Order: sequence, then structure tokens, then C-alpha cells
Amino acid sequence: MTKDTFKDHLNNVNQFNISKKTDIISLINNLRGTGFNAKRLALACQIYEKMIRDNECVKFFGLAGAMVPVGMQGIIHDFIGDGFIDILVTTGANLTHDIAETLGYHHLQGEVDLNELDDANLRQERMNRIYDVFLPDKVYEGIEDFISELEIPDHNMSVSSFLKFLGQQLPDNPHSVLKIAAEKNVPIFCPAFTDSGLALQLGFHFQKLNLNHFKDMLEMVDLAWDATNAGVCIIGGGVPKNFIFQSLQFCPTSAKYAIQITMDRPEPGGLSGATLSEAMSWGKVNEDAEHSMIISDATIALPLILWYLKTLFP
Amino acid sequence: MTKDTFKDHLNNVNQFNISKKTDIISLINNLRGTGFNAKRLALACQIYEKMIRDNECVKFFGLAGAMVPVGMQGIIHDFIGDGFIDILVTTGANLTHDIAETLGYHHLQGEVDLNELDDANLRQERMNRIYDVFLPDKVYEGIEDFISELEIPDHNMSVSSFLKFLGQQLPDNPHSVLKIAAEKNVPIFCPAFTDSGLALQLGFHFQKLNLNHFKDMLEMVDLAWDATNAGVCIIGGGVPKNFIFQSLQFCPTSAKYAIQITMDRPEPGGLSGATLSEAMSWGKVNEDAEHSMIISDATIALPLILWYLKTLFP
Amino acid sequence: MTKDTFKDHLNNVNQFNISKKTDIISLINNLRGTGFNAKRLALACQIYEKMIRDNECVKFFGLAGAMVPVGMQGIIHDFIGDGFIDILVTTGANLTHDIAETLGYHHLQGEVDLNELDDANLRQERMNRIYDVFLPDKVYEGIEDFISELEIPDHNMSVSSFLKFLGQQLPDNPHSVLKIAAEKNVPIFCPAFTDSGLALQLGFHFQKLNLNHFKDMLEMVDLAWDATNAGVCIIGGGVPKNFIFQSLQFCPTSAKYAIQITMDRPEPGGLSGATLSEAMSWGKVNEDAEHSMIISDATIALPLILWYLKTLFP
Amino acid sequence: MTKDTFKDHLNNVNQFNISKKTDIISLINNLRGTGFNAKRLALACQIYEKMIRDNECVKFFGLAGAMVPVGMQGIIHDFIGDGFIDILVTTGANLTHDIAETLGYHHLQGEVDLNELDDANLRQERMNRIYDVFLPDKVYEGIEDFISELEIPDHNMSVSSFLKFLGQQLPDNPHSVLKIAAEKNVPIFCPAFTDSGLALQLGFHFQKLNLNHFKDMLEMVDLAWDATNAGVCIIGGGVPKNFIFQSLQFCPTSAKYAIQITMDRPEPGGLSGATLSEAMSWGKVNEDAEHSMIISDATIALPLILWYLKTLFP
Repeated sequence: MTKDTFKDHLNNVNQFNISKKTDIISLINNLRGTGFNAKRLALACQIYEKMIRDNECVKFFGLAGAMVPVGMQGIIHDFIGDGFIDILVTTGANLTHDIAETLGYHHLQGEVDLNELDDANLRQERMNRIYDVFLPDKVYEGIEDFISELEIPDHNMSVSSFLKFLGQQLPDNPHSVLKIAAEKNVPIFCPAFTDSGLALQLGFHFQKLNLNHFKDMLEMVDLAWDATNAGVCIIGGGVPKNFIFQSLQFCPTSAKYAIQITMDRPEPGGLSGATLSEAMSWGKVNEDAEHSMIISDATIALPLILWYLKTLFP
Repeated sequence: MTKDTFKDHLNNVNQFNISKKTDIISLINNLRGTGFNAKRLALACQIYEKMIRDNECVKFFGLAGAMVPVGMQGIIHDFIGDGFIDILVTTGANLTHDIAETLGYHHLQGEVDLNELDDANLRQERMNRIYDVFLPDKVYEGIEDFISELEIPDHNMSVSSFLKFLGQQLPDNPHSVLKIAAEKNVPIFCPAFTDSGLALQLGFHFQKLNLNHFKDMLEMVDLAWDATNAGVCIIGGGVPKNFIFQSLQFCPTSAKYAIQITMDRPEPGGLSGATLSEAMSWGKVNEDAEHSMIISDATIALPLILWYLKTLFP
Repeated sequence: MTKDTFKDHLNNVNQFNISKKTDIISLINNLRGTGFNAKRLALACQIYEKMIRDNECVKFFGLAGAMVPVGMQGIIHDFIGDGFIDILVTTGANLTHDIAETLGYHHLQGEVDLNELDDANLRQERMNRIYDVFLPDKVYEGIEDFISELEIPDHNMSVSSFLKFLGQQLPDNPHSVLKIAAEKNVPIFCPAFTDSGLALQLGFHFQKLNLNHFKDMLEMVDLAWDATNAGVCIIGGGVPKNFIFQSLQFCPTSAKYAIQITMDRPEPGGLSGATLSEAMSWGKVNEDAEHSMIISDATIALPLILWYLKTLFP
Repeated sequence: MTKDTFKDHLNNVNQFNISKKTDIISLINNLRGTGFNAKRLALACQIYEKMIRDNECVKFFGLAGAMVPVGMQGIIHDFIGDGFIDILVTTGANLTHDIAETLGYHHLQGEVDLNELDDANLRQERMNRIYDVFLPDKVYEGIEDFISELEIPDHNMSVSSFLKFLGQQLPDNPHSVLKIAAEKNVPIFCPAFTDSGLALQLGFHFQKLNLNHFKDMLEMVDLAWDATNAGVCIIGGGVPKNFIFQSLQFCPTSAKYAIQITMDRPEPGGLSGATLSEAMSWGKVNEDAEHSMIISDATIALPLILWYLKTLFP
């Protein structure tokens, strides 16, 4: 911070009201004039807006956390369907749960007010818990039926090619992430694919399967290499964050726009909570990048960002 | 959790979309069918709605954190102005900053990307930092001018009586918390009053001042005692949370509704992060209470709750 | 950070081993050569050591959180007994619980694996919960017996004078904070005193009581004013942190040493989680101060610091 | 919690002192009688002790976070060298940094008090930042020299086989994780291997490389299947946590002992912060398991646990 840039930023904090005229655009515009995480959220909305308006921007989206189980499947679906995501990097878990919902199974809403005895009882009822969301064991049997009937064209294809094939095999569904990505030709990368129930079932049924993870890695580097401008939106952190960032080191300009929504903090040193400024030292985020890290549960912040974008780009 | 109540709650998770028909009511209703903190936010909206619809409910509101400096002064003002708060408990800091804004001074929006050298420079410029919000030292001189001219009617009055007197002395302002509370006859309690810049200036100017904190404490107990139903909304935690809860132990039914928005966590044992269920063991929250704790920055969650309430109760 | 100071700090990270020769001094010295919160802990140990070696340093200690209930009463007692604290600022809760233990009552160890039904049952058994620590209601009756027999010499004394009087009335006890503070003439400030069970009982029994909180506030300012050097150690945050810091603005040099142990984070803007660097902009911490904020549960970090200090200063 | 088990656990909280007789064993024993995270740390020490004393226990260790860069390489090395780990699951980053240190390069200690300009300057100096630890770009050139000379025996081997091969090629070093694991025949799994600088360099140099991730996945399942008793210690969370737990679903008894050290919280629903009780509903942790989750920076807690274990098992 130089003295000059400091003075440039000294607007009055905006003390605003909510009224019957308030809509998502005016709310975000008002929050832009405040501070703390409200300002960060508003800034993230504006940065994503710029990513969309910038025709040369390749939009990388990292998705960690149990976002499909919790009810954000349709939100991710729409981000892809509306063209707000060009490349998705996610966890095997989100894909496993996406298949479950796409096949017509459902996650269940429960209570979180549980003690150990309750968890033991859930085990007896073969009911798996993800905080306050539940998934019956028997859903995995349904996924297995689907998996077992796959005719995999190539045992050494990349994971992303396999995921596109998978999306094509799935039935139509208004919320499916795998389906809409296959339709829209948005590649899905999943670097820790074997760390998932989906991969376990594949491994049990197709013993010769050796999906080529290195091919994905190099393809992702090529995509970054070819990106004139790069924009990043990270939900959570984890492997998707690192995988996108390790590729953006090979992007000619590194990320020009960067957003992250996370509850992690930087002080324990893990990558998930690392600031976007830190990524500048690695050449992952450009030193002139517009960036905003929102410290928030993504289930609150992400629908608001989509609402803002959908209203601007109907 | 008994097996029966467990099965009663097993609705499908709601996989929803955002569309041009989305408004704050439909968004909250959709989030109610999800999980994690999105569900908690939706639940909090519905609980606050019930608190307002319940004519016998006395609504206690605890406000900690730098909510006035950051741009939430108008939000709190409207909560009071619209009748959504019956009793406010807050920190001396929020009151000090409320006076500043009410007198026409402004907090300033800055950047948080600062190092120690920047903070040292801010000191040289007499610019005080609250994360990414700034307040020039000279604003305190303006507050001091206002304070020094007060003619305090009673040196041994309670803090809440003094704060009402203060609200009456302040000029009209569309966002002022002290002003609207005085107008609406909503008492403001501030148990840690001497822990504030406002009290320091009072102490320097009025050496005989001995505002009676015990009178406030007992008055608050009386208010809880008289509440047929009690509802609580806590922003942050700290002294306001404890002060409300220690009084509700004397409420015939303890809190029937309870909401908290905080970033604190329960495991280190401090009261700010303690669950609302824990408060049941103390008789502060009723065992049948509807309650929701949102883990979120209040600058994001609180405007959404107000927007929901204002739309329902225009 | 200038380029020069940056290069000055570039030591190799210390990859160390634990062996049978390891003691608390060597452990801390080894951690000093690492990073993240381990380094911050080691740095805090060294800063506290300097505060003790600096004969002109007045050591302010802020104590928030349920440290007495959880088993840290003896740790705080020893900090005072060994001369490591000159001025204590704490919450009414810690004092209430200190009286309970000093009178021979005990907090109880429980399990945290509880659901709402358990909390309701605890209520039935009149057993109050503080995370995984429990306190039977009947202990409050014991405190009340003690309170009701007090002969308070002056109804308008300051809170700190009253707390000294209280310490003198309590029986001898090897862990009592109030007792050792009275014996060692270490003043205890409690700005939010009426926010406590102790104050409630006092208020019920002594209706004329009007402890003068402003007297405390001004006395604290005088103590800061007179401090040639000031050192601060903050456990938690809250009112004790702010009360110490608002006084240190009047210290000729502001804090020369500053330590905080907290789980709070700066981004939501509350004072508890604010960095010690931010305090420099206010003139609360000197721009040349040595400071360390440890992101840790204090129940882990504080005994380690005391162990380090006791070993150095036996 | 039944009423009976509740009453069984009601010991008095232990108010203890530190003295010159204090050693790591007595400190941990004292903390066992307290609450909050101090008790959890003490419990974790005792659980790890039992894992070691149980001759039939297979000890799974999950390692996420930048533990090697920060100075914990020797700690992990000793856990393996002393036989406290039977199977290690970690991130590609820790392995990349382990190679760097093992080849004689060093991470550097820096300051965290940086702004964006500093990060931009670091980029100019080709100095990569991991919170307050730094690694010069040129170290990656040294790793590349090592990688480029490898003669990989099989391009389709599993990742764990490759990592054993790698450990054998590395020079002797008193802290090397890969080296000691190869020597002690402790398998290292790395499910997200291609999400690392190490894999990028391998991919660039060995274009035919297709390490078989599915082979690792199935081997890990076999190891869990064969474990009479299983014990788990998770540092951080992330992929290593999930990969161990998805395998333990196939362990006849699931985990009998479980420890996690993390700063994540359960409410946002991600697996890293999920409670160990939640894992019971999945059959990953046994309903009778002894378990402890410590909310702490691992750089503080892990050396203490090792110190405790090394003192007990010299």
C-alpha cells in the first residue's frame, strides 16, 4: 500500500437501508460500499461479472465440499448451463453424489443435533451422515447397478474423458452436473478420482481400469497455456484449488481474476486457507489481478453470486 | 433424537434453481430445504418471523462486533424502527461509532492488504483501523465536543437511562441507532460501558459520573421476568450474549426462540461460540425452543434476514 | 517489509527431532525455527521472557473465556504468584467460578457428545454445561451463602477495590486467583462486572450497591500512563482485550510487547480477532513492539508458556 | 448419553500446577483432567499410546497440510522410524517438499507481515510463499535434475510402488520421510499424486508414465481388509482423511482408535472438519472406538504427541 493508493480508496462507508425496492443487484451494490465479508462478497460478484464480460477469459471453477449432497447441485448445474464455467475441477465425492441424484435417488434432510449413540443407530439403519444431510447405503447399490452396466470404451483414457463418457450415459436431469457438462462440452477434472465411492465401484467391476491421471494433468496445463486471460472461482479449497493453481503457473499471464469462498484460515499454513495474495508469489495469480476471498459457508454465498449473475445475464 | 423424530425429518434435500422469478422469500424458502449454514439461515429467518407474529414475544437483540463502523448502522436502525427489536444490548464501541455517524462524521472504506509498516503509517496519519474500515482520530474530537456540552441530569442514573438521554440529545439522522431507540422507547443496555471511547470521554469530562450498572442489571432481570415469551437474536456473542442469557434465566419460560450469527466455534469453550443447545442446560433457552445458530459473518447474514422480514412485514 | 529486512530473516526452517534430551526449553527453541503457529507460540514464550527480564515493564494480562472452569485456575494463580502478571483484567464469569473453586466446590468433567435431549436432561438435573465441563446449580447456593455474609465497607467503591476486598475474605486455597491477587497486591479489573452470576447475587443482596465502574476506568488509565514500558498478554479477546488496549493509548510508549492467544480470526472485523498490527494504527501497540498472536485454544498454549517461564525463572 | 454413563464421567476438573517436576508425561496426565482442547490433546496421546501397545493394530496416518515445509519433516520421519506409523497417506506437496529437503535444499523462515506488493516482489525474486515459509524457485530445478535422471522400472506401477522406488533413490538424510518409509517398508499412498509439482515434473520428463492409481486404491482396501484392529491418526483432513476412511469401511471392525488434529469445523459440511462420530454412521469408525479430535494447529499438537510417545517408548 503506497500512501497514494491508500488515499484513493478512502470512500465513506455506505450506511444503507433495505426497502421494497431492494433487489439482488442493489443489495450487492450497497454491500460493495461496506466492509468485512459483505464487501468481499460484493466484490466477488463484480469480479465474476467481469470474467463473463471478458470474452477472452477462460473460467476455471474449483469445487470441493459436499455441495451436491447439500442441495447446491442445481446451482452448479446452472453455472455450467449458463456458460459461467469453462473448466470444472472437483472431488470424486461430488461426482458420486451427482450420479445418485441424477439416477433419481435423493439425499435426505436431517437434524444435526446428534450424539454418538445416534450415529451408531444411523449405522444400524445403514444411513450415512454428511453433517445434517443423510444418504441411505442402498443408494450406493443403485449407483453400482449403473456402473456395472457401463461399457467403457478405453481402460487407459484420461479421467476427464471418462467423466464425459459417464455424463453421456446418464439420463436427462435438470440438475445433473455430469450431464450438463457433457452436453456443454465443459471438461471435468478430478485429480483425486480414486478417493471416491465412484472409483471404488469402478475398481471392483473393471479390474483392468487404469484411467490415465497424467494425461489429465498435462491437458490441464495445455488449457492454462492457451488461456489468454484466466479467471478462477474456488469453492472450498483442497485438491481442486491446488490443481487449478498449479496449472495457472503455465498460463502466460496467470490468473487475471480470482475468487474463493472458504471457511479456512491462512495461519495454519494449509493451501485451502491461503490468501489469494500468497498465490501471487508463485505466479499463480497475477500481481494485477482483481481478487476476493469470501470467508463464508459457500451454501450461503454461492446462490447469491449466481442470483446476481443470472439477473445481469438473463 | 428418537428413532421416530428422526424419521419425521427425513425430507429430500431440495435441489433448486435460481430464476428471474427468484425473490428473497423464494430464495429463503428454497434454502430451507437444503443443509449446512444455508438451512440455518433460512431457519433463522422463519424463527424471527415467528417472533414478530407472536404478540406476546419480547424480542431481545444482542449486538457485538463492529457492525456500525462497517456499514450496518442502517440495518440495526431499521430493525428497531420496524419494531423487530424490543430490547437492545450492545457494546460501548457500537454506541461510540453510532454517535460519530449520527453527528455527520463517516467511517472510511479502505483496503485490508496491509503490513505492519502500513499500520505504522496509519498511526502517523492518525487514522485508526478496524480491519478494512478506517476512522480518523479527529472524529473523536467531534464526539468530545458533543460530550463536553452535555448537561447530564443525574450522575447516578443507570447506563440505559443515560443512553436514552443521549439519544434525545443527538440530531435527527436516518441511520442512528441511539436516536431511533430513544424515539421508539427501546431500551439500550451496555453492561461493559466503561470499556469504550465514549465512556472514557465522559469520565474525563464528568469526574463525578457514577452511572449505576447494577440498576441496569436488575432492570434487565425485571424485563425478562415480565416476558411471557422471550425471543433472542444474538449478533456475534460476547457480553451482549451473556447479559441477555443471564437475565433469561429469570424469564418464566426462558427463551422460546433463539437465533445467533457468529463465526466462533464451541470447542474452545468460550460463551460466544457455545451452542444454543448448551444454553438449555442453564435454563436460558427453553428445551422446546426453536433455535438456529448461523456460522457466518453477520454482515452477510443480517441484511438478508432484514430483507426477508421487511418483505413479509412491509 | 523492505527488501533488506526480508533478506535478514531468511534463515533455514529448522527440521528438528525429539529425543530423550528434549525439555520444554529445547522444544520451544526448536519450534522458534519453524513456522505457522508453532513459531508464534515459541515467539510468545520469548516475548513473555523479555517482559519479565525488563524491570521497567508493567505486565497487563487479559483473561476471557472459561479458563477457571476448565482447569486453568492454578495456571493463572501461578502467573500471579510468580510475579508474571502486574494487572489482571478479566470477566465476571472467571471470578464467579474462581470463588466456587476457592470455597471448595468443583467443576466436573463430562462428555461433549450430547444432543439437545441431553441438555434438556441436564436442566432437569440442575447441571449447567460449559462445553464439556459441568457445574451443579447448587454450587451457586454455596456462593450465595458466602456473598450474603459479606460486610461491604463501601457501596460506591471501584470494582477492583471490591475484588481485592473479596479476595481478602476468601479462605486460603492453592489455586485461587482472587486470593493470590489480593495477597500479591495485583489489581483485578472487571469492566463488565454486572454481566456475571457474582454481580447478580450481589445485586439481589445489596440493593444499594453501586460499584463505581468509572473509577476503575480512570485508575486503569493512570496505571497505563505511569508505565514506562508496557507488556500485554491477552487470553481470548473480548472486553479484557479492549479495556487493556483503550488504556494503553494513554501509555507514553504504548505496548512494547504484545501476545495474544485466540481462536478468533480478523476477517469478520471484531476486536477479539483483530491482529496486533491493527492495534498499532490506534497507538495501542508500539510500532516497534515485539508481538505474537497464537491461533490456538489457550488450554493448550498457556500451560506451555507457563512451563517455559517457570523453568527459566524457578 | 444415558444418565448412567453421564454420572460415570463426573470427575472433578483437575486444577493443577506446573512445577520443576513437570515433564511431558505429567503435563499430559494433568491436562487429561481438564476440558476443551487440552483434554482432547491428552486423550489423543493416550489413544495413540494404546494403538502402539495393541500388537494387532494397524496404524494408518493421514498427512495433509504443509507439514514438511514448516519444519515437521523430522517429526513425521520419527513417527515412521519409531514404528508409530504402518501406512502413510499424504499429499503430493509434502512429498515434493520432502525431496527438496532430502536433496539438501532448505525451506526458509520468513515473516508473514506482508502485503500484496510484497507478494509481487517475492514473485520478482522467484521466491514462493507458504504462509511464513519460503521456497526459492531454483529448488525446483534441483528436484528436476534428480527426477530427470530416474530410470523408472515400470510406467504402470502403482503410485505407492513408485514412491518406494523414489525413496530408495534418495540419499541418506536424518529427516527424510520418503527415505525412512522405504527403509522401514512403510507404504506411502498419495491418491492425488498428479496434483503436485513432483508429478508435473515426472509428466514432463516421462510422457509414457501412467502410474496406476486404481492399483493403490485396491491395495489400500486389502490392507484395511486384513487389519484385525485399525487405528487412525489424521493431520489436517483432505484427501488423506477420506482415502483412509473409505478403505476402513472394508475393515472387519472399522477403526477402533481414531485421532484427528485440525482447524476445520463441522458446520460447513466438508469432510475435513467432520466429527469422528459422523464417521461412525458410515462404518468407518467403530461405534465403540476411542477417539479424539483436537482443534489445533498441528505444528503445536503433533510434536507434543511425539514427545509423549517417545518418552513412553524410548
